[in-house]
Amino acid sequence: VKHREIAKAKAVAAGVNSERLWRSLEDLGSVGATEAGGVCRLAYSPAYRQGRDLFVSWCRDAGLSVSTDGIGNIFARRQGRNPQAPSIMLGSHLDSQPSGGRYDGAYGVLAGLEVARRLNDLGMDTEFPIEIVSWANEEGARFDRPLLGSSVFCGRTPLSSALALKAIGGESIEQELNDDLVWRAMPRRQESLPHAYLELHIEQGPVLEAAAVPIGIVTGTLAVRWYDVIVAGEEAHAGPTPMLARRDAMMGAAELILEARDAANRFAPHGRATVGQCMLSPGSRNVVPGEVRLSLDLRHEDEAHLDAIEESVREAGRLMNRRGLHVQISEAWRMDACKFDSALRGHLITATSQNGLAFVELPSGAGHDAVSLSTIVPTAMIFVPCLGGISHNPAESITQQQAETGADILFRTVVELAT
Amino acid sequence: VKHREIAKAKAVAAGVNSERLWRSLEDLGSVGATEAGGVCRLAYSPAYRQGRDLFVSWCRDAGLSVSTDGIGNIFARRQGRNPQAPSIMLGSHLDSQPSGGRYDGAYGVLAGLEVARRLNDLGMDTEFPIEIVSWANEEGARFDRPLLGSSVFCGRTPLSSALALKAIGGESIEQELNDDLVWRAMPRRQESLPHAYLELHIEQGPVLEAAAVPIGIVTGTLAVRWYDVIVAGEEAHAGPTPMLARRDAMMGAAELILEARDAANRFAPHGRATVGQCMLSPGSRNVVPGEVRLSLDLRHEDEAHLDAIEESVREAGRLMNRRGLHVQISEAWRMDACKFDSALRGHLITATSQNGLAFVELPSGAGHDAVSLSTIVPTAMIFVPCLGGISHNPAESITQQQAETGADILFRTVVELAT
Repeated sequence: VKHREIAKAKAVAAGVNSERLWRSLEDLGSVGATEAGGVCRLAYSPAYRQGRDLFVSWCRDAGLSVSTDGIGNIFARRQGRNPQAPSIMLGSHLDSQPSGGRYDGAYGVLAGLEVARRLNDLGMDTEFPIEIVSWANEEGARFDRPLLGSSVFCGRTPLSSALALKAIGGESIEQELNDDLVWRAMPRRQESLPHAYLELHIEQGPVLEAAAVPIGIVTGTLAVRWYDVIVAGEEAHAGPTPMLARRDAMMGAAELILEARDAANRFAPHGRATVGQCMLSPGSRNVVPGEVRLSLDLRHEDEAHLDAIEESVREAGRLMNRRGLHVQISEAWRMDACKFDSALRGHLITATSQNGLAFVELPSGAGHDAVSLSTIVPTAMIFVPCLGGISHNPAESITQQQAETGADILFRTVVELAT
Repeated sequence: VKHREIAKAKAVAAGVNSERLWRSLEDLGSVGATEAGGVCRLAYSPAYRQGRDLFVSWCRDAGLSVSTDGIGNIFARRQGRNPQAPSIMLGSHLDSQPSGGRYDGAYGVLAGLEVARRLNDLGMDTEFPIEIVSWANEEGARFDRPLLGSSVFCGRTPLSSALALKAIGGESIEQELNDDLVWRAMPRRQESLPHAYLELHIEQGPVLEAAAVPIGIVTGTLAVRWYDVIVAGEEAHAGPTPMLARRDAMMGAAELILEARDAANRFAPHGRATVGQCMLSPGSRNVVPGEVRLSLDLRHEDEAHLDAIEESVREAGRLMNRRGLHVQISEAWRMDACKFDSALRGHLITATSQNGLAFVELPSGAGHDAVSLSTIVPTAMIFVPCLGGISHNPAESITQQQAETGADILFRTVVELAT
């Protein structure tokens, strides 16, 4: 025991191999590279498979045993002293948006690999197995169901319905996998629940950069509600119709949009209101719109506050009804808020403090595979800042130092949990 | 002279033949009739030619001499005692919007014909010739240049460029006219300026109906300015980006839209602001729009007031620039305000009063062929109410009584001017 404690202390002090991690990110970033400097590795595509194959070859070189499952998630296991013990699972995803960046997902997967490689360097064994995971189709860009691989793994989406999903081009995931000889040849993962799941990811937002801290400890994810809003007024000619005689759907929509913004601002900093789509009918320059359809995306980490934001918008709609505009607000989709495991978050905070680093606790505004995992095992996430908060964009960028800092926290926490 | 005075008094007292006018409107309304109850007589189309041919046959039956010109305007002349005298010109147009109504344009042409028929009934001659005109391509629906025939007539558009205009399908007006054997066989109008131009039209707006008056005396037309507005912000993810970190182009656009409305309202009742088009980029439900492009249509009868409305919008845009949104407002098109002839308007007011009718004076918010004519000869317009102010729509509707009342004013005024 004494011997292990010394090894552990040495390992933790050493941290990860920053050069190796960065080189792996560079090498993987060249697979599916776009002219704009980003990557296009759409789920199940040839570029995606090529990236996966590179990752698998690195895993095998590191002595990890690679397996897969029915939806194409990839697991790379570093055995523990107790082979029956549940694994400490680390990972993210290797697929990208069509015009994606080099770090979204890839960073979490390769940092997991670096943790295993570093344990190898140090000749260090762990009590619990370590399992690096690359989740299939996290982005939902080609097959329109984000977090798909992790949802299937966690029993939230039936495998059969996931396999039946079709891309725009028409192929189903099942067809793609049937054509994937590498996947077909892989052994299937033995079904077992991991002990815990940790995901390291770029923030994809501006908070850490603005706060000038290198680490974010993610408290959970914001609740999301999507609405389809229809503002119906009366089509009229722009010229002959005096302002007071109009029932102008666009003016009503503009008021509603600003009310949503103001309501989200009243519940700062975690309230969000976004109108990303707005369609005017008939859409003619000199015709007062008779109807406006818009999308509304409201978010907050606290469901009660989100209720209040929603109610503000609905009340504004009701007031417009009295003014001759008919406003219809229908919920199109919702995702409940998710709270990450407080004990695991405590481990991350301890590791960050032990490394002498500043951090902030913040909710994630975007969904991650960790949300799926949190429904079945203790889960937590670490964020590192990315340049300008820009993501899903070829301009997505982090520094080698930022990549190393996040991986160091992951490494220290895994050593703490697994040994 | 005494004899003529008596005949004139009798004629004026008799008014038009309401049944005949209404039957003509019904008959013409069956040409190009749509299932929805409106008409589709796109300029130069087979349905349009059929309607024109019907009108021409009625003119010939009424003893009028029909001529045309290079762009296909149709003139039907009732000779005066003084054949050298310039004509009193009355008219409007027979083309329609694709989903147009039965009265827009047709009413003014057939009321002109009814004036001539009524003079025939009464065996009444006039000093000045009376000329009924049907202007070509007023709507600009198939060939995208409204008021085309009257613009060519008034020398505001060169004939050659008008003939070269192409429809969506690809045919030019020149090709359409070359295929039009009826038009080719018609004599060309002798070039001469009319003495005055009068146009009777449905209001296409709600003012007369709301004021419950049967007649509107049109003061002129509103100045119109069209702008292309671009609000540029920064694309960002709806989830991870706190409200304060956003440069949300849609929120800026919504503020600008409401500022335009408020500015138009400050110059009521003749200020107008309309946003008929609004396009968000990238147009995704969970992405904060990085750019919004919108159309802005501002109108006022007073150019100085319109300047002030425009300046309010520009100032709002400049304030947004300081908040990180870049607003660009470019003028896309403008039409100056037009003032109709005050002496002619006086004649219309006198005729209305002599018929014991209430009226309001109001500007026209829409363009009419009278705007073209006002640039070369004294011009005025009469409006009658239409149901709900609805036009450019199959539901466009007026009553026989309303049609008769307007035609009576036209008739009385023509008798006054021409005899």
